[in-house]
Amino acid sequence: MYLFEYSASKELIVRLEHDADLVQSVTELARSKGIEAGSFTAIGALKRARLGYYDQKSHGYREMKIDTPHEMASCIGNVSLKDGKPFVHAHVVLADEMGNTKAGHLFEGVVFAAEVHLHQLEGPRLERKYDEVTGLSLWIIEEGRG
Amino acid sequence: MYLFEYSASKELIVRLEHDADLVQSVTELARSKGIEAGSFTAIGALKRARLGYYDQKSHGYREMKIDTPHEMASCIGNVSLKDGKPFVHAHVVLADEMGNTKAGHLFEGVVFAAEVHLHQLEGPRLERKYDEVTGLSLWIIEEGRG
Amino acid sequence: MYLFEYSASKELIVRLEHDADLVQSVTELARSKGIEAGSFTAIGALKRARLGYYDQKSHGYREMKIDTPHEMASCIGNVSLKDGKPFVHAHVVLADEMGNTKAGHLFEGVVFAAEVHLHQLEGPRLERKYDEVTGLSLWIIEEGRG
Repeated sequence: MYLFEYSASKELIVRLEHDADLVQSVTELARSKGIEAGSFTAIGALKRARLGYYDQKSHGYREMKIDTPHEMASCIGNVSLKDGKPFVHAHVVLADEMGNTKAGHLFEGVVFAAEVHLHQLEGPRLERKYDEVTGLSLWIIEEGRG
Repeated sequence: MYLFEYSASKELIVRLEHDADLVQSVTELARSKGIEAGSFTAIGALKRARLGYYDQKSHGYREMKIDTPHEMASCIGNVSLKDGKPFVHAHVVLADEMGNTKAGHLFEGVVFAAEVHLHQLEGPRLERKYDEVTGLSLWIIEEGRG
Repeated sequence: MYLFEYSASKELIVRLEHDADLVQSVTELARSKGIEAGSFTAIGALKRARLGYYDQKSHGYREMKIDTPHEMASCIGNVSLKDGKPFVHAHVVLADEMGNTKAGHLFEGVVFAAEVHLHQLEGPRLERKYDEVTGLSLWIIEEGRG
């Protein structure tokens, strides 16, 4: 288990711009505010989205286009560093007009309306590095820091 | 992007009453405690619910009645002001006895059992006003405040 | 309504071990760190899982085995005391390679990769006791404490 201890810092409540991409918007917010570690939740509605499913054997993402409007029933994500810059990782559950769902990794989500609560964390450096076992960029304890 | 900065305040852990409505219960809690800004998550089970899907073209909600017991696999929501009073906005993902899901905006959820973590926020006034583009009540930066 | 007021304490960001069980890992973390009240969110991917649906009439869990890899699109949970020891209650939404979902109570989730944000809470004792009405172990206000 890789454990990082933080104290709470600012709490940001954000209404994203209509037609903006959720992932890019939260990334830009984190970069402009110097947020290097954090977690967030969001609800709202998306005009369209690109979801991902990670193939645990082939180590590649399968992409799914969602081309119709959906409720964003859930969005949970975090902010950490990748290549030294704030990076957003988010998963969503979307719901159509019958309440039926599609879910997965969020590559892109074009905002109809979105309300985000981003919880900034103060503490150790939270950096992603390539992980051989999964093929993903995961948090590591850096040598000489920890 | 409409950005509001808060500092953390009290954290409330709540077990809702059996047979109470989730949305109304959290609303009453916020009003009785004077919570004007906050966010929450919840898990549990509902006896029945009314979900909503917002039609992004006609600007109206389509309502769906869920008349059977479901796990509340996820509930994410927030508290802000509407018409000057604490108002709750929540989305849920429900699961039936096969693990199949229905999700969307939560109009009403009759509690079998529900565990809520409500994160109170201290800071600027967070008020909803009618938004022309979406037809929804969204957060605005009030002139002379911000 | 059963209401418990806390102040924020440490915020833990955790990358769980590949092949570990999510529920057991968070339980061990809480026990080793002396966390007796808290809430968490998580995202990632699971190799397999056991989900539960609670039958609100017969008061028993129906178990569902998910034997294939899934994205963990959402995980919301809490930590409280049961039989005097830190106990984890978590619900998940899982998504397959088509974005289709299965969701419910999480009995066991074998981690492919998982990123957890655990919010430790400081305040009153949060203890579960058997509840006659639901057949579940729910939070109670203990006599002489409250």
